[in-house]
Amino acid sequence: MDAWPLLSRGDRLDGFRLLESDGSEELFDRLESRDQAELLDQLAPRERRTWMRCLDPDDAADLIQESADESRPALLELLDETTRHQVTALLAYKEDEAGGLMNPRYARLRPEMTVDEALSYLRRQNPERVQNLNYPYVLDQEQRLLGVVSLRRLVASPTSHLVRDIMNEEVICVDEGMDQEQVSEIFAEHDLIVIPVVDARHHVKGIVTVDDIVDVVREEATEDMHKIGGSEALDAPYLQVRLLEIVRKRVVWLAVLLVLEFMTVLVMRGFDETLKRAVILAAFVPLIIASGGNSGSQAATLVVRAMALGEVRLRDWWRVIRREIAVGLLLGSTLGALGLCVALTWYSIDPEPFKGHALAVASTVAMSVLCVALWGTLAGSTLPLLLQRLGLDPASASAPLVATLVDASGLLIYFTIAGLLLTGTLL
Amino acid sequence: MDAWPLLSRGDRLDGFRLLESDGSEELFDRLESRDQAELLDQLAPRERRTWMRCLDPDDAADLIQESADESRPALLELLDETTRHQVTALLAYKEDEAGGLMNPRYARLRPEMTVDEALSYLRRQNPERVQNLNYPYVLDQEQRLLGVVSLRRLVASPTSHLVRDIMNEEVICVDEGMDQEQVSEIFAEHDLIVIPVVDARHHVKGIVTVDDIVDVVREEATEDMHKIGGSEALDAPYLQVRLLEIVRKRVVWLAVLLVLEFMTVLVMRGFDETLKRAVILAAFVPLIIASGGNSGSQAATLVVRAMALGEVRLRDWWRVIRREIAVGLLLGSTLGALGLCVALTWYSIDPEPFKGHALAVASTVAMSVLCVALWGTLAGSTLPLLLQRLGLDPASASAPLVATLVDASGLLIYFTIAGLLLTGTLL
Repeated sequence: MDAWPLLSRGDRLDGFRLLESDGSEELFDRLESRDQAELLDQLAPRERRTWMRCLDPDDAADLIQESADESRPALLELLDETTRHQVTALLAYKEDEAGGLMNPRYARLRPEMTVDEALSYLRRQNPERVQNLNYPYVLDQEQRLLGVVSLRRLVASPTSHLVRDIMNEEVICVDEGMDQEQVSEIFAEHDLIVIPVVDARHHVKGIVTVDDIVDVVREEATEDMHKIGGSEALDAPYLQVRLLEIVRKRVVWLAVLLVLEFMTVLVMRGFDETLKRAVILAAFVPLIIASGGNSGSQAATLVVRAMALGEVRLRDWWRVIRREIAVGLLLGSTLGALGLCVALTWYSIDPEPFKGHALAVASTVAMSVLCVALWGTLAGSTLPLLLQRLGLDPASASAPLVATLVDASGLLIYFTIAGLLLTGTLL
Repeated sequence: MDAWPLLSRGDRLDGFRLLESDGSEELFDRLESRDQAELLDQLAPRERRTWMRCLDPDDAADLIQESADESRPALLELLDETTRHQVTALLAYKEDEAGGLMNPRYARLRPEMTVDEALSYLRRQNPERVQNLNYPYVLDQEQRLLGVVSLRRLVASPTSHLVRDIMNEEVICVDEGMDQEQVSEIFAEHDLIVIPVVDARHHVKGIVTVDDIVDVVREEATEDMHKIGGSEALDAPYLQVRLLEIVRKRVVWLAVLLVLEFMTVLVMRGFDETLKRAVILAAFVPLIIASGGNSGSQAATLVVRAMALGEVRLRDWWRVIRREIAVGLLLGSTLGALGLCVALTWYSIDPEPFKGHALAVASTVAMSVLCVALWGTLAGSTLPLLLQRLGLDPASASAPLVATLVDASGLLIYFTIAGLLLTGTLL
């Protein structure tokens, strides 16, 4: 399994064929939908039917979603009629909502069953196909959710009792349209193994199990991280994305940032005369804007992650800003002091470019680092909140975007401070 | 629960006291260990004992780990003797290894029990305290793992059969010292609900359940994201970290980066004369180095995440580098072409600073963007691999660190290209 992503298409097919039937079934089951689709594509039609039919409806739906548009109808045709209906219903949900995660096959009991009847019903179910045998749901005749009773509770109850009398009526359930991130939060908060998905009329449509939630948590973090790095989410393992696809996902933001970065050229041009008179100011430009970019990347990443985890919500905006002002002042002062030392150390080694105004130049650097770092911290922490307010994804406040936005404004701050502190001496 | 992080210490205590005993038990159970420790700290000793005793050993161990060093022995004293021994054993494990995640209370069967005996044993267990009732483990007299049998299998088997004959002997288990990230991968790969933790002699020490794994996956992603943003991992919700603590975690890297960034000052100083002769070159400095920083942040983030997910391993280094050279060339060419257009557009509006050498200057910008973006991509993707090779955390290859490293070298590339293309005209 570990080696799978590293094999070529042909090697994968050969490897798969070499396995005994048990081994190939286990391997097929454990593959990602994307890899299953690729493998199926290379098999003969009859083999394809066998493999499609051994999938659960939710896995079959995922596989079909990963296949090329034109081959989807043919894949659906391979399923038996019941499963085809279930899979078609699942395909109507978006991939990232509860309905898109759920399995429509689950164990259900009637409230008027005795414990004995319930146990013998559960005994007959195939645990490969029904994943909530330990927590069967109790439904009325219209499939409305009435309660849940654990297998252990059934085992521990007198056989003549009714399911109705021993079931737990307080069942945590989720709406079919709920976002998968929210579903995963409910799982984490209540330590659940399985959750029923219901429609507006409280009819059970399927179940979501915790193993899918582990994948959801992982995927959502990956998407956010890709965005924070300044790229679109890759949606597939890094080494498996085609070259042109990965370039397309990365080039868009980089191009936008390059155009935005043109603002810095305009600011630099605006202070042409200042730079001609004091070339030493140019020498500090990368350092000053980097201190804004770095503190901004940091603040943006922390706030984006805190928002994704639900630790910070939009209504906390003022607490975040207040906190980041304090943090920014402390960070800025430390970095400013460090900037002062660095500039003076440089002066002690190489005094020429300072033209005798070491303290004035060093103070300009220190003050600029302080203000730019504070500004970067503030901009980086506010941007995710602003994006959320506008209905956009806070994770789009990527480290490179924040750095770019802070670059031009950082230069303005730097040259303004230089104007204030150096006019009459260097300028 | 949602409001908990937003309350003050005093309000939390008041809110807690206002709840009925059922409600307060549920609330206490669902709080993070950190919040439990804080609450306990404010309660009277007798109440403290009651609450400590209602915790599972693994949760008690977590709470004690979150408490101040000096109050740990007193908290241990509150437990009954058996639990105290279990908790003391758990405290010997690191928080992030399998042993640190596990619960030492689990349901165990003997191989020579009949199905009937096994069921009646399981019926007597308290499902609040033992989390693997659906999958009890079969152990020999020395607590060595022999197999597992599902509750459903027991229910479906004739009552006179022996556990030995119906158990599944192929149990996936983990070593007590295994890193929690690896444990979570095993859960994801095999869709597990619970896994036994064994020592070197195959003795079962406890169990890890999937709900803890959801937390692990989330935590590990958060740590990586904080590091990628250029800060230390916060280890607590953003709004709950004390101000000075958050400043400390953020200032260290920023200070290191500022000192590293001093290399750019030296490079700029080295090309003093070039800048004096052609001030227009200074105007493009932020844009050029940003294109390296942005492409580098992107590449580093993608590779760090791919490594965390196990999609890229150290031995794949050559595939990664080959791929990033190709990606970098394509990204660089696109950005370079865009840079050419931007420079020429500027020239058409404001020709003065180009001093009649528009095409030469624009070509310098385009070539520099191409080379710097390629270099950034390459540096960003190689650094995480290099850190891993050195036994360090690849996630330390943060966006700001990569940007900083690429800044000074990017300037060198820029001025070298300017020297080649502009000598004889502007220079």
